[in-house]
Amino acid sequence: MIPARGYAAPDARSPLAPFQFERREPGPNDVQLDVLFCGICHSDLHQARDEWGGSIFPMVPGHEIVGRVTRVGAKVSRFKAGDTVGVGCMVDSCRTCPSCQDGLEQYCDQTAVYTYNAREKDTRQPTYGGYSSVLVVDQDFVLRVPDNLDPAKAAPLLCAGVTTFSPLKHWNVRAGQRVGVVGLGGLGHMAVKFARALDTHVTVFSSTDKKTQDALRLGAHEVVVSSNEAAMKAHENTLDFIIDTVSAKHDLNAYLRLLRRDGHLVLVGAPEKPLDVAAFSLIPKRRSFSGSNIGGIRETQEMLDFCGKHEVTSDVEVIPIQQVNEAYTRLLNGDVKYRFVIDMKSLK
Amino acid sequence: MIPARGYAAPDARSPLAPFQFERREPGPNDVQLDVLFCGICHSDLHQARDEWGGSIFPMVPGHEIVGRVTRVGAKVSRFKAGDTVGVGCMVDSCRTCPSCQDGLEQYCDQTAVYTYNAREKDTRQPTYGGYSSVLVVDQDFVLRVPDNLDPAKAAPLLCAGVTTFSPLKHWNVRAGQRVGVVGLGGLGHMAVKFARALDTHVTVFSSTDKKTQDALRLGAHEVVVSSNEAAMKAHENTLDFIIDTVSAKHDLNAYLRLLRRDGHLVLVGAPEKPLDVAAFSLIPKRRSFSGSNIGGIRETQEMLDFCGKHEVTSDVEVIPIQQVNEAYTRLLNGDVKYRFVIDMKSLK
Repeated sequence: MIPARGYAAPDARSPLAPFQFERREPGPNDVQLDVLFCGICHSDLHQARDEWGGSIFPMVPGHEIVGRVTRVGAKVSRFKAGDTVGVGCMVDSCRTCPSCQDGLEQYCDQTAVYTYNAREKDTRQPTYGGYSSVLVVDQDFVLRVPDNLDPAKAAPLLCAGVTTFSPLKHWNVRAGQRVGVVGLGGLGHMAVKFARALDTHVTVFSSTDKKTQDALRLGAHEVVVSSNEAAMKAHENTLDFIIDTVSAKHDLNAYLRLLRRDGHLVLVGAPEKPLDVAAFSLIPKRRSFSGSNIGGIRETQEMLDFCGKHEVTSDVEVIPIQQVNEAYTRLLNGDVKYRFVIDMKSLK
Repeated sequence: MIPARGYAAPDARSPLAPFQFERREPGPNDVQLDVLFCGICHSDLHQARDEWGGSIFPMVPGHEIVGRVTRVGAKVSRFKAGDTVGVGCMVDSCRTCPSCQDGLEQYCDQTAVYTYNAREKDTRQPTYGGYSSVLVVDQDFVLRVPDNLDPAKAAPLLCAGVTTFSPLKHWNVRAGQRVGVVGLGGLGHMAVKFARALDTHVTVFSSTDKKTQDALRLGAHEVVVSSNEAAMKAHENTLDFIIDTVSAKHDLNAYLRLLRRDGHLVLVGAPEKPLDVAAFSLIPKRRSFSGSNIGGIRETQEMLDFCGKHEVTSDVEVIPIQQVNEAYTRLLNGDVKYRFVIDMKSLK
């Protein structure tokens, strides 16, 4: 077994604290890596506090991982020691269901094995995430991180990046289209960058005007404050696609009305309470309201390659792991631009 | 001008009564027809009672019209006297917007000119529908009704038919897929017939078990009573497509959960109140919830040709026009299998 150090939530009510544990010895298909950076996703906080139920403690969160390969199993040919690699939300899946066969492991019929707060398929051992020194992962769930990307800024691509990239690709968003991004946080700011890199016209919708300059800097062509009724009205029937990153209850009909005929609104934030959808927001223009969950391994690699080509990364605030609990508090207050990333050197 | 007789609602609170009016003299692009049969759509009742607001009185309802051509304008070559033709929900549109150019006049940017309770584009005269002796309609909004179809049973195809056919075609529903039909009324019974004719596996969801035998007779492979939790559970993640014809508030999440990955639920009923949609009904399987409005002229013709080929028509109860008010009452009580059709001979 391989000794590992990290930070874990001991239970749903205590702060994260230093934690020592072991990783499995790499098998023939495994890649061992030293974690360089790990992003802090809002779902880390939800799960550490057991807000979705069923959490496994102690929990080492973290699924926005960039690391350096230190060792590979005998059957691993695509990776070698020294490579910069990424690990996202999943480390395994059934591999046989139609979704897995389609490269959409996130929709695996038996549920993918998540990077933390899950159990390994065969051993039923808990999985531990990227707030840690070392990781051992099956090669099929390891991604190449392009060399030209700053590894700290690349870490959030593994979840926030692919979560916003995947729907843009799945719904075939393309140059010249008009894209709306609702909410400008960790997910939203990535959506803006991707939509801009895809040569679309990007409009950010925000509840305040405080983010206007930032949104423009990130690539938006315009910003609409959602309480401005005249501005909202002026955008009715104009957008081809909306990516909605808001995870609180909000007025979805106000955004559905902005879509043109056959337009799609895709929710990637996950409000706890149901959203009201009026039939007349959809029927008169054949609009669709959909949800999308992270992205498959194949499209995660496609996203990383796209980021390498277009030099897209996340805006990050790098912190030592000792500040993780403070970062959680700030995250709850929306006080981060736009993603905390833990520098794992701080573990030593 | 051409004298016409019909039944009209004089205002929102009075019963329909005999009404004499005039149609325009056919222009070079017009087709004049004697109305043979006209279906009674629930939207006739909504509009006659001004439940959607803005109704124009006196109102001659009716947009499920089958008639016989009596005269055509000089520029009309596709129709001749004696032809059996149909007229549906629209009699004109702007013809220049992207939707009109795409043959989707129902999504016209300037709003299509509806067959009744609307105003003609140029004259601003009110349009009067099919509860009448004669109709004058631009040839571009006249459909051919295949000769092998019973004209009384064909009338409801012009609205109930195309409203259910259009989403099945738009979302590319095809042989071997599993289709759910929610609600078995005028729309639902047509959806069952079309889905069956498309060689899909058809499951009807009904709030009671009273319609089971009928649903099977109409072509369903199975019927699920929606209050049967075990049966609903057994259908989770199994359907490719659901057409939801219910126009009252209902639990949409119970149906969204039945969809497989990338499945679509399309609403064609129009509940007045918003529906609750849980993010977790959509995100984990990338499901979509959409709405669809009738169908374009091109696809209405495609639908009629399909009906000719597959011998699909509506189940109807033919009534004389003198029973229209009684039919409205029975319609409100769900007491019709599955569409009232007025025999216009009764006008004489």
